[in-house]
Amino acid sequence: MSLFKRPFVFINSAMSADGKISSVERKQVHISGKADLSRVDALRAKSDAVMVGVGTVLADDPGLRVKSEPLRNARIKAGKPENPLRVVADSLARTPPTSKVLGQGSLIAISAAAPEDRVASLSQRTETLLCGEKTVDLPELLATLHDKGVRRLMVEGGATLNCSLIKAGLVDEIYVYVGALLIGGKDAPTLVDGVGFTSGFPRLKLISLEPLESGVLMRWAVAGA
Amino acid sequence: MSLFKRPFVFINSAMSADGKISSVERKQVHISGKADLSRVDALRAKSDAVMVGVGTVLADDPGLRVKSEPLRNARIKAGKPENPLRVVADSLARTPPTSKVLGQGSLIAISAAAPEDRVASLSQRTETLLCGEKTVDLPELLATLHDKGVRRLMVEGGATLNCSLIKAGLVDEIYVYVGALLIGGKDAPTLVDGVGFTSGFPRLKLISLEPLESGVLMRWAVAGA
Repeated sequence: MSLFKRPFVFINSAMSADGKISSVERKQVHISGKADLSRVDALRAKSDAVMVGVGTVLADDPGLRVKSEPLRNARIKAGKPENPLRVVADSLARTPPTSKVLGQGSLIAISAAAPEDRVASLSQRTETLLCGEKTVDLPELLATLHDKGVRRLMVEGGATLNCSLIKAGLVDEIYVYVGALLIGGKDAPTLVDGVGFTSGFPRLKLISLEPLESGVLMRWAVAGA
Repeated sequence: MSLFKRPFVFINSAMSADGKISSVERKQVHISGKADLSRVDALRAKSDAVMVGVGTVLADDPGLRVKSEPLRNARIKAGKPENPLRVVADSLARTPPTSKVLGQGSLIAISAAAPEDRVASLSQRTETLLCGEKTVDLPELLATLHDKGVRRLMVEGGATLNCSLIKAGLVDEIYVYVGALLIGGKDAPTLVDGVGFTSGFPRLKLISLEPLESGVLMRWAVAGA
């Protein structure tokens, strides 16, 4: 397994005009509308795998499947699985066994620090992948995904996973839908949380910019620090 | 004094693509370039007063004056003071007596909770205005500014003052320059911090959208919850 081959990685997220992806209560806020959700669904359908952090699973319980039947059928016609592989970065195996993300076509990446009983319970519902000692080793995870044939990986948050991936230099592009609302709050999750940067701020390059419904869709390339 | 007359209020801020106005260290980050700084200077020159919260004074020590000599001269020709009135919302009179914002043409709004010695010290350098018991009463402050002839008030942050003004329904427009970089950090200040909203999120209406240097300038009208 080479650590240097990885899929093309892009983050897709919706945020309020003040950079929040949900409120201080971490309840999902409707930031975007139908047109944006269709765009997201199409991005999913074009990806080989979709990844989220366990925080997003715990907060939103997303299904991470392609919603459009025509898009699912087109995948099948092209010889692909109906849905992209659903990956959760979950160092401590906290994904609840009832999560919608689980089932056929899901992969929970865990670390050696995950409690055995939780890993055993998860393993009954899905494939688990051990990579990393205390936390999921993201370069190793991406290399493994590449080995599994994943060439295009869509990351759908949350704020902490986004930060870890960017810190590790593993993100190529970021799609941000900026919704026409304010959420505010010192403790509300933003597009990129974690420890953040105090120098060597990653530079971006604007690929495209368009008004979409009442908001704005921005597509950025990550150009490096 | 009528509490119902207030100036037109707009916020101007630069933020990273992930909504941060500075890093977790609260040190100023260069988010925008020359063209954006000229735009901001022109906005200042067209305003009757410029306001910041004391947090911004403590973190950045901004001068808040018009930088362009032609713009200052144009103000004088129009019979206005060289610079807009510089206002600090400073409930506890924490503005250091050496702050650049002080001097002729500045006004520090304090509350009754501000320690007397600090108020006495500040009063030697600037006009102070008592409004509010524990914190600055923003509607009262804006009404007083209106009485003083301020019809157009530019708010230049920070995150807490922005939130308080928005919560109080006192903001008409928001200019956001989105810089082509990421800052990240769970505790980095964002465009709107404070307690934020958990329902009744203020809705915005996109007035204009344009690429500017490597970033994007968005102008939003605050449409109400």
